[in-house]
Amino acid sequence: MKFATLKDGTLDGRLVLVSHDLGRAVAATAIAPSLIDALQRWDAVQAPLQALADAMEAGTAPGIVAFDPAACAAPLPRCPQWLDGSAFLNHGRLMEQAFNTPPIPDFETMPVMYQGASDDFLGPRDDVPLPSEAHGIDFEGEFGVVCGPVPMGVSADAALSCVRLLVQLNDWSLRALGPHEMKTGFGFLQAKPSTAFAPVAVTPDELGDAWQGGRVRMKLHVQWNGERFGEPDGREMNFHFGELIAHAARTRRLSAGCIVGSGTVSNRARGAGSACIAERRVIEKIDLGAIHTPFMRYGDRVRMQARFADGRDGPFGAIDQRVVPAAAAAEG
Amino acid sequence: MKFATLKDGTLDGRLVLVSHDLGRAVAATAIAPSLIDALQRWDAVQAPLQALADAMEAGTAPGIVAFDPAACAAPLPRCPQWLDGSAFLNHGRLMEQAFNTPPIPDFETMPVMYQGASDDFLGPRDDVPLPSEAHGIDFEGEFGVVCGPVPMGVSADAALSCVRLLVQLNDWSLRALGPHEMKTGFGFLQAKPSTAFAPVAVTPDELGDAWQGGRVRMKLHVQWNGERFGEPDGREMNFHFGELIAHAARTRRLSAGCIVGSGTVSNRARGAGSACIAERRVIEKIDLGAIHTPFMRYGDRVRMQARFADGRDGPFGAIDQRVVPAAAAAEG
Repeated sequence: MKFATLKDGTLDGRLVLVSHDLGRAVAATAIAPSLIDALQRWDAVQAPLQALADAMEAGTAPGIVAFDPAACAAPLPRCPQWLDGSAFLNHGRLMEQAFNTPPIPDFETMPVMYQGASDDFLGPRDDVPLPSEAHGIDFEGEFGVVCGPVPMGVSADAALSCVRLLVQLNDWSLRALGPHEMKTGFGFLQAKPSTAFAPVAVTPDELGDAWQGGRVRMKLHVQWNGERFGEPDGREMNFHFGELIAHAARTRRLSAGCIVGSGTVSNRARGAGSACIAERRVIEKIDLGAIHTPFMRYGDRVRMQARFADGRDGPFGAIDQRVVPAAAAAEG
Repeated sequence: MKFATLKDGTLDGRLVLVSHDLGRAVAATAIAPSLIDALQRWDAVQAPLQALADAMEAGTAPGIVAFDPAACAAPLPRCPQWLDGSAFLNHGRLMEQAFNTPPIPDFETMPVMYQGASDDFLGPRDDVPLPSEAHGIDFEGEFGVVCGPVPMGVSADAALSCVRLLVQLNDWSLRALGPHEMKTGFGFLQAKPSTAFAPVAVTPDELGDAWQGGRVRMKLHVQWNGERFGEPDGREMNFHFGELIAHAARTRRLSAGCIVGSGTVSNRARGAGSACIAERRVIEKIDLGAIHTPFMRYGDRVRMQARFADGRDGPFGAIDQRVVPAAAAAEG
């Protein structure tokens, strides 16, 4: 099943099911008003939602409309917890060099993860209001999972069975603020403004073989102002999503609807490019001796679209956003 | 006004108004079903809630019942964001020695703050299920504020006017896990299980002179297994709550209901005792040359109660909790 959330002025938005080709949608509100409600009552709503999805594919469901990603909020406009790992060690090692921070202890054997704000996510086409170009505005292309209820102390294997949905996201980052916050030991806060999500959240079966071993084996195609930036593959993730969920739930339970992120998708092969600017910058420094790529400016756009190995567009739809001054956004 | 939330099996619980003497309560659900709902519609509900509170004090409101803290969830059983500062620099400096972590940069001029989980708070009398006594189980007595909507980039002064309610809380901590998480730079996650709250959240006017300069000028009396542990005063907070809120909102807005914490209340005078075990331990090491106090064991209780300068009980009610094995809690 494919889910999206239409903006309707409420905090949780209005749930729709989206067709396989992402061309059509049908209101699911008679079954569950919102995606968070569906996740809280998953066992009860799964079968009727599947029946509605099937009827949409067959063209027999009443009220089928064209699917408009621009009308979408994030699939979960807010959620109980947003926990972002850094599970591509290639990215983590490069970022240590970029930030000039001490090596992370036990980096290869224990996931690192920060707790992000989860009350105000951005939709796939929303402008991104930020207070200053001097903050080092950067995108971070990632995959993520939406969990059902997770008990405290869950094993990594059992945690995989808690995965309800897969998502694609842009973990907006302010690179000028990150190193200071890492040095406090208290973690990222100002360095992480609202996170954005691709319009469609999907059940794992929608990925077929591309969901394997707790990893999304798809390339994340990233464009900055219309130019190719990279297409790293999710298969190189060093910790799988079950391991990340188990890490998050070691000393507390997670309530239904928590989102766990992969961290920036990153591949060892330089030819894959990058899913964030900071990584390209440190590679330039290493390979070319100097940084050539600046961070983002107001008016810049980033587009992210996952693709299957055979080149077909992935099921999440595209993130396509523009950075704008926070003051202008507040006035607008 | 004084608010509490009765457990009723829902995620947000059921809102009641509590009398000045904490002896009586009256359902506020006809005005707002839950505290989070009231905070989201504050301007519309403030006057009718005040009228109901006045009628309860006058004894004219129908349906007045005895107030039972044991029936309470946290005033907000879940909230949009839980952001905990470390605004008592005396505590922070001692903890650097306790954890043997590097000095925090700009510690005296810029607040430090971590983002905590906000989906599953504990009530004032709830057992605290934790997976291992080896994790260094510790309490942390704090004050906090509940905010209305906070715009991105708010000033510290303007942020103070966003304070809707004051709360008293216990930021449970696992000290064996903290230093590693600080060294990753990603901040606390496993080291911070669910946070607990005193039963009553109050509007700032309920404190009279004890709410001054954005600080709660009250002593937080802490008892461990019935023995006095300390009663540090909130007046020594080095950053006030407006500064903490402004720090949290520098690059993002906060939605109504976010909670910002003071960090462990801590005084320079040794005679005040401590509001967490880790602080007493490092003081023992400094003053006596060796650590004498262990961390908590299963079955241990902690009680926290704020008091006014004249010794009267504060308006928050008491936190009184017992630590239990997580497995037993899951089975129970």
